[in-house]
Amino acid sequence: MGRSMCGHLIKAGYPTTLYSRTKSKCEDLLTSSGTASWALSPRAVAERSDIVFTIVGYPHEAKQVILDEETGVLAGMKSGSTLIDCTTSSPELAVTIFEAGKAKGIHALDAPVSGGDIGARNATLSIMCGGTEGTFQTTLPVLQVLGKNINHMGGPGCGQATKATNQVLIASGMIALCEGLMFASASGLDLEKTIEAVASGAAGSWSLSNYGPRILKGDFKPGFFVDHYIKDLDIVLSECRRMDLKLPGMELATNLYKQLRDEQEKGGEMGTQALIKVFERMNGRAL
Amino acid sequence: MGRSMCGHLIKAGYPTTLYSRTKSKCEDLLTSSGTASWALSPRAVAERSDIVFTIVGYPHEAKQVILDEETGVLAGMKSGSTLIDCTTSSPELAVTIFEAGKAKGIHALDAPVSGGDIGARNATLSIMCGGTEGTFQTTLPVLQVLGKNINHMGGPGCGQATKATNQVLIASGMIALCEGLMFASASGLDLEKTIEAVASGAAGSWSLSNYGPRILKGDFKPGFFVDHYIKDLDIVLSECRRMDLKLPGMELATNLYKQLRDEQEKGGEMGTQALIKVFERMNGRAL
Repeated sequence: MGRSMCGHLIKAGYPTTLYSRTKSKCEDLLTSSGTASWALSPRAVAERSDIVFTIVGYPHEAKQVILDEETGVLAGMKSGSTLIDCTTSSPELAVTIFEAGKAKGIHALDAPVSGGDIGARNATLSIMCGGTEGTFQTTLPVLQVLGKNINHMGGPGCGQATKATNQVLIASGMIALCEGLMFASASGLDLEKTIEAVASGAAGSWSLSNYGPRILKGDFKPGFFVDHYIKDLDIVLSECRRMDLKLPGMELATNLYKQLRDEQEKGGEMGTQALIKVFERMNGRAL
Repeated sequence: MGRSMCGHLIKAGYPTTLYSRTKSKCEDLLTSSGTASWALSPRAVAERSDIVFTIVGYPHEAKQVILDEETGVLAGMKSGSTLIDCTTSSPELAVTIFEAGKAKGIHALDAPVSGGDIGARNATLSIMCGGTEGTFQTTLPVLQVLGKNINHMGGPGCGQATKATNQVLIASGMIALCEGLMFASASGLDLEKTIEAVASGAAGSWSLSNYGPRILKGDFKPGFFVDHYIKDLDIVLSECRRMDLKLPGMELATNLYKQLRDEQEKGGEMGTQALIKVFERMNGRAL
């Protein structure tokens, strides 16, 4: 996703400096643009930039890339510059980053995205921002290069909390989809016809309309990786523990996704719609 | 719902005979139409009709209204006439009714609807039909008076199985909605803004867009009664037992809805969006 997002920034005319742990992922951007340059560390990117974007897979990686005292971006950023972290991470870490930035006169925005690979490629990401209103307003033109549905959700951490809410909504939604298909199949219904008949009414959802047909085709390619979704679910559950919040549907979904990862070969590398396989196995029957 | 549906049939010019256990519910229709007449039993309706519609609350009521040997509609129907049962009932009972009809030369369609009171009033119901293709085709013009999204789902019972699938999809979808709102609220987010930010993406659903705002307004009026939804969930679970199908999200939803019915004053008479109250109680915090 970072590569696509970076490509849009370059195309929009921003002079851009890149760093990735895997330099090969950046070769395209470096050769084709003519204007992008390479740096040897996150810190080195930061030293040459007014706005720094970060996007990595896991919160502990975001912590390292941003907060590491030797190589991290905050160590290299100038006072008055802005950090936009697009990693899906924890609200708590977002607040830590915001405070660490503030102490050095740096503005920070937590800005996790949704819309996946396709959204990143087509610049149609949803971007959920947490931070000050001022920082949001000054960075909005840059964010508009990357996405369409861009919202300022509140203070530091609120972008991450909104993304976490998004993942909570998807969790039981995916259970609903899988159970609906299992029930319809066991009842002998034509599954395509069933999706068509119910998708426009009160049972309708993005998951049903988008993942339903892929499941029927046996297409379990990611979209969104099971491993990454489990990471997000773990962030939510750890937030729930912190806030003393009980969400039984979330717990059920997390258990089922961990079964998918642990019991299916390369389950973690499948798309989230592969959850149907857990239900098929649980019931000893295929769709 | 029966009253609204019947009103559309009368308006469309069909000579109509009515029966309801509560005659007062029909007074409007009888006085305003000038053409509708009253009968003293379901059987008496059937004796004067080529097409008989039935819609009641529970499967045991449908069984009585249709199959009772003294007063039921099948006892009064002529060979060649058609029965359309719009009750949300079990696929099994639909097959029993179909077979009982067939033995007397009567065509039967199971045709449960979704779209609620509003759909009935505006003639925008979804109608999910099970029965022979021939019966579906000959009754389609009458069904089109009542609804918009009308599908022939397969043989007898397939309409009920589709409606049950619809209710399975809604079950975990309502959990998703409630848990998303609880999480967002505990995280200190603005809930209206959160719904707006996520509803158009992968977390989107009919429930989120329609029930979310009602919950935020504290509007727990039915829409769709908790008692009726529990009836539907019990039909699904009994089908699951019959088909040896395990659906843990469905079981969770059924338990939560029964808590709502049993622990809240008049919980059964609330709309299904009142499920949020169970989550509020479970967590000792209001939205």
